[in-house]
Amino acid sequence: MNRPTVPLRAAVLLLFAALVAAPALADEGMWLLNNFPSKTVGAKYGFAPDQVWLDETRLSAVRLAGGCSGSFVSPNGLVMTNYHCVVGCVQDVTTPERPVFSKGFTAKAAADEVQCPGVEINQLIEITDVTQKVLDATRGTSGAAFADAQRAAIATITKACATGPDVRCDVVNLYHGGQYDLYKYRRFQDVRLVFAPEYDTGFFGGDPDNFNFPRWNLDASFLRVYQDGKPLATPHHFRFSKTGAREGDLVFVAGHPGSTSRLNTVAELVYERDSYYPQMMMRMSEMRGMLREFEKRGPEHKRYGESSRTFVENAIKSSKGQWDTLLDPAFMARKTADETAVREAVMADPGLAAKYGDAWDRIAEAQAIKRRIGPRYSALEGGRRTFGSSLFGYARRLARAAEELPLPNEKRLKEYSDAALPGLKQQLAARSPIFKPLEIEMMALSLTFLREQFGTDDPTVKSILGTKSPEELATELVNGTTLEDPAVRTKLLEGGKAAIDASTDPMILFAKKVDPEARAIRSRYEAEVEAVEDQYGEEVAQAWFAVRGKDSYPDATFSLRLTYGTVAGWEQDGRTIAPFTTLGGMFERATGADPYDLPPSWFAAKDKLDLETPFNLVATTDIIGGNSGSPMIDRNRQVVGLVFDGNIHSLGGEYWFDLSKNRTIAVHSAAMLEALGKVYGGQRIVDELTAPK
Amino acid sequence: MNRPTVPLRAAVLLLFAALVAAPALADEGMWLLNNFPSKTVGAKYGFAPDQVWLDETRLSAVRLAGGCSGSFVSPNGLVMTNYHCVVGCVQDVTTPERPVFSKGFTAKAAADEVQCPGVEINQLIEITDVTQKVLDATRGTSGAAFADAQRAAIATITKACATGPDVRCDVVNLYHGGQYDLYKYRRFQDVRLVFAPEYDTGFFGGDPDNFNFPRWNLDASFLRVYQDGKPLATPHHFRFSKTGAREGDLVFVAGHPGSTSRLNTVAELVYERDSYYPQMMMRMSEMRGMLREFEKRGPEHKRYGESSRTFVENAIKSSKGQWDTLLDPAFMARKTADETAVREAVMADPGLAAKYGDAWDRIAEAQAIKRRIGPRYSALEGGRRTFGSSLFGYARRLARAAEELPLPNEKRLKEYSDAALPGLKQQLAARSPIFKPLEIEMMALSLTFLREQFGTDDPTVKSILGTKSPEELATELVNGTTLEDPAVRTKLLEGGKAAIDASTDPMILFAKKVDPEARAIRSRYEAEVEAVEDQYGEEVAQAWFAVRGKDSYPDATFSLRLTYGTVAGWEQDGRTIAPFTTLGGMFERATGADPYDLPPSWFAAKDKLDLETPFNLVATTDIIGGNSGSPMIDRNRQVVGLVFDGNIHSLGGEYWFDLSKNRTIAVHSAAMLEALGKVYGGQRIVDELTAPK
Repeated sequence: MNRPTVPLRAAVLLLFAALVAAPALADEGMWLLNNFPSKTVGAKYGFAPDQVWLDETRLSAVRLAGGCSGSFVSPNGLVMTNYHCVVGCVQDVTTPERPVFSKGFTAKAAADEVQCPGVEINQLIEITDVTQKVLDATRGTSGAAFADAQRAAIATITKACATGPDVRCDVVNLYHGGQYDLYKYRRFQDVRLVFAPEYDTGFFGGDPDNFNFPRWNLDASFLRVYQDGKPLATPHHFRFSKTGAREGDLVFVAGHPGSTSRLNTVAELVYERDSYYPQMMMRMSEMRGMLREFEKRGPEHKRYGESSRTFVENAIKSSKGQWDTLLDPAFMARKTADETAVREAVMADPGLAAKYGDAWDRIAEAQAIKRRIGPRYSALEGGRRTFGSSLFGYARRLARAAEELPLPNEKRLKEYSDAALPGLKQQLAARSPIFKPLEIEMMALSLTFLREQFGTDDPTVKSILGTKSPEELATELVNGTTLEDPAVRTKLLEGGKAAIDASTDPMILFAKKVDPEARAIRSRYEAEVEAVEDQYGEEVAQAWFAVRGKDSYPDATFSLRLTYGTVAGWEQDGRTIAPFTTLGGMFERATGADPYDLPPSWFAAKDKLDLETPFNLVATTDIIGGNSGSPMIDRNRQVVGLVFDGNIHSLGGEYWFDLSKNRTIAVHSAAMLEALGKVYGGQRIVDELTAPK
Repeated sequence: MNRPTVPLRAAVLLLFAALVAAPALADEGMWLLNNFPSKTVGAKYGFAPDQVWLDETRLSAVRLAGGCSGSFVSPNGLVMTNYHCVVGCVQDVTTPERPVFSKGFTAKAAADEVQCPGVEINQLIEITDVTQKVLDATRGTSGAAFADAQRAAIATITKACATGPDVRCDVVNLYHGGQYDLYKYRRFQDVRLVFAPEYDTGFFGGDPDNFNFPRWNLDASFLRVYQDGKPLATPHHFRFSKTGAREGDLVFVAGHPGSTSRLNTVAELVYERDSYYPQMMMRMSEMRGMLREFEKRGPEHKRYGESSRTFVENAIKSSKGQWDTLLDPAFMARKTADETAVREAVMADPGLAAKYGDAWDRIAEAQAIKRRIGPRYSALEGGRRTFGSSLFGYARRLARAAEELPLPNEKRLKEYSDAALPGLKQQLAARSPIFKPLEIEMMALSLTFLREQFGTDDPTVKSILGTKSPEELATELVNGTTLEDPAVRTKLLEGGKAAIDASTDPMILFAKKVDPEARAIRSRYEAEVEAVEDQYGEEVAQAWFAVRGKDSYPDATFSLRLTYGTVAGWEQDGRTIAPFTTLGGMFERATGADPYDLPPSWFAAKDKLDLETPFNLVATTDIIGGNSGSPMIDRNRQVVGLVFDGNIHSLGGEYWFDLSKNRTIAVHSAAMLEALGKVYGGQRIVDELTAPK
């Protein structure tokens, strides 16, 4: 399944048509909604989306702030997305009386729809070009000053845009600093679960089938957006297609690809291949092994462990595919040849050479710094689950909020800017259950990594662990904290610095203790690595523009994109992979053993089902992690599928698009209707999806 | 700690002095006992070992057939080796009444010495050059015919040499096919435990301190060889030095380095870097994570899980160091430049070009084949614990013995040749306890890997798993078999093919089921990869000889080698690392938390101990995994230390020797005497070690 991968990825760059074999023929591209190549599509397929079509699509598509895509599929706020995008909510709302995890969930009436804590949905209502403002702010600066100036400018722009908690504004860095667009979203935080299948159905085939096709997977769920306690009116939405798509049909996918690195410099790719992936894959693998055993301790352990493992396995598989692309000498030779050609062209033109000549070397130098300080940056400042712990994540956000919020907006770390506060508050207030035994294991593992990487005698390691073992420290902090209680967190947030200063919560104390060093390495990383990659990455981009022309789409940045293609299988090892599977195939694949243990609901309904119903399908659209939950629509903007994965060849899509093999995998619209109506007692939802407009 | 790493390593090649910066100065080399550079040593250090010195050393040094080194240290069969080399025996002899694992063990009298099942000790009594016989047999052949002819010749030579079960004969391939020597050993299979410290002492510092220095680790144990129920008379042995070694002293290490790859071709190194290590490191990491959790299920789980994890962590750390060397662009550039220079010299000489010109390309082609078939070879035929299971290992050996033993000696798979039979019988008869819950987890993990690597729809995967999950199949096979009982195994071995055909043991049935495919992939691998690497590797070696001259030592092959150097620290990041630690330092490092939880025995003895006693030391000798347990001796052949590890820089020793940083780590002789006498009540052993000759 496609999800944005972990942070600390190389900076986002752009792909140029010249990089692929036959640019005019390839259905390649994660296109901006305000720069869609309608003419090209029209010329090839006889259908050119007009502005109304594009606007309607933009307003019907939504983003799940946690890292997925979705779409409105009824006038009453109904949202379609993947099961794997709501599995966190499934965990959160599962109780002994409401076993959503094991038995699935179908709200029989509106009143039964149950709130998903912490889920935020965004609808993109406006795109404004703010390039000039950002470039003006950073002109003439470099390093830390560049990073500070850019952060301040973005904080000011987003604050002016975000007029209330129901408005979310992000400045999106496109073409690696070549363009900055302000994306204004409506923000919805009252999101309720309408339908989810059993875990065993939503993940049928599990890790072995993940990123594979043929496939049989109902990776689908439905949510509903509420406002003021009532379903949101959503006049902009997609209808379900009655017929679905056939082989060869033109289809579109509107969604939020998380990130791609299609024009990283060779130095950046080598860093990823030789430094980033080896470390990351070993850690993920160890986590996977730990979770496999953890699950065996009891039913709660199983539920929490299994869903964590699902995500770890997904990350391992997708990252392995990306890594394999980098390890492929043919791929690297092509990238190197392309880069060399552009650099030679730049050096042959004195004007270009003066402007861009040293950009590649500056980026290569930043990679050398990244190799040295990247591991420490990652260990101390690695996203929301630093030290592997959600509870530490809460503690850090609270401790930092106390320091940051008193500062002027433009001086704060970006995740504490005014525009970011509604999201921060929702996360801290969300009733997401914490399973402390798993928190302890994850934190102990992470602290063990830390000691392993830097050594027992490293001053940071000594200061963090003292005389305790990783297990002892993790147990003490996790069992000692009360931050799992949202009321405690909200109170600490509202209490500000005084409350944090007075707190004796061990996790808060620990977060405060490690903060100076974490901030220091972050500043250094931002100034010596990110600012350099940003500044010279823009030069590299401009150099490519100058040498190879300008018709291109930017690398993915978890902003809305539209991609087009056709329903089509592919050739592999001399065999043709057909583009459709059927519901009947799932019954044939069901062995009764995990992960092929189809739940009883399906066997109970089998006689009623049309086993010839198309189930999953593949298309040539260009997607990647973050596109999960994207609607696949036809030229009439009708839903023909629900994107949930790519095939194994799509994993190289991080670095290039291979039209001959890269395929998007979707649940067919007909299969969703068949399952909802006949397996899950969801006729109410079927009616809502198929009601005439 | 140093141990031979897992199989499927690139073939063994040789290092030439020309490869290192200052060959005449470097104390580099794992020298053959029958080709030791005494003159060079004499010129540099004023002491040149003579033939008597070398013969005495050869007869005093021993090999533990399981993968370690050791030495006779008294006239009565007393053997010194590492704790980590006998931890399997510690497991085997631990009972509730005799808690060797947690409390350590000191035999107060000869009668208390307890047998180590499955431990075999070899003493090298003769080396004969058989190069001509082997080369005559393979002349004019290639591929499968080459492999068959070589195997048959070796089986014939070893059979003629191995005149009884107490004689072991190995044909050792040196200089990658340039030389074949027949090593004749006395084989001892009645080996008893005399002394072992607590696990927490033997592994003090655990994984975090492993491959690090300064170090405080009593990684020492003593065994005794028995013959006919009595201690073996061992007139050839090393005495303990009264004073130990001082900084700058000349020292020697006699031991059995497992394998090095110092003159692998660049194509072979790239295969290791980009194909072998990524896969292997992920698997080992996952195993480690699994074991961490497994240990928490109970005391037995902890004991078995912890000692397995120790080995996995050691393998991870040592392999990571080797991989990092390959990932170092400077290292790879040097290797490439060296190879290019030799190839150019070869091509510039028509005679050499005709003989050796295409050898590198043939080896590169074999790497491409290895990339394709290596994973399946490794999965189906990966050593004694194929499918992660010792029980499967027994089943396969029994099932194959039934097929192989009726064949003529020279037609058999090499591990069933007549010369190998005593070892096979001992392994099958050994009373090594099997902990089935761990067997199940390891096998399930391995079967999961298999499915993951080849996919659910792969015919082999389908045939192996059927409709079962990896966990189900592993549970069924492990719980269903009775092969944990040595009597059952011995009976099946003695019963031959009829017994195997009649067996309904599920593990035997499973081994028979997978055998045709496993044998097929092995034959293919041997013919298309190993035979090519062997044949053309020899040409590469000859080409290097021709271009760069002949003064060299062969790559390590787990055969006896002698290396020399001095007691010396090193410079790192501007600091000088001193070559000694003291006993007192261990008390300072003890935090009470794993892996720094020093057992009570030490605190009880602390007042009696001389805390200034040197504890661990480092020297410039050239060792690698397999050297564990090697004696470090002075020019008088007195024991000054017990080798148990190398520093972190020694890990690159797989590929080159870096005199400035690569260091051997040993337990100082004085620390062993101090601990034996004052902590462990082993005055009897101290007296034996220090009695005048």
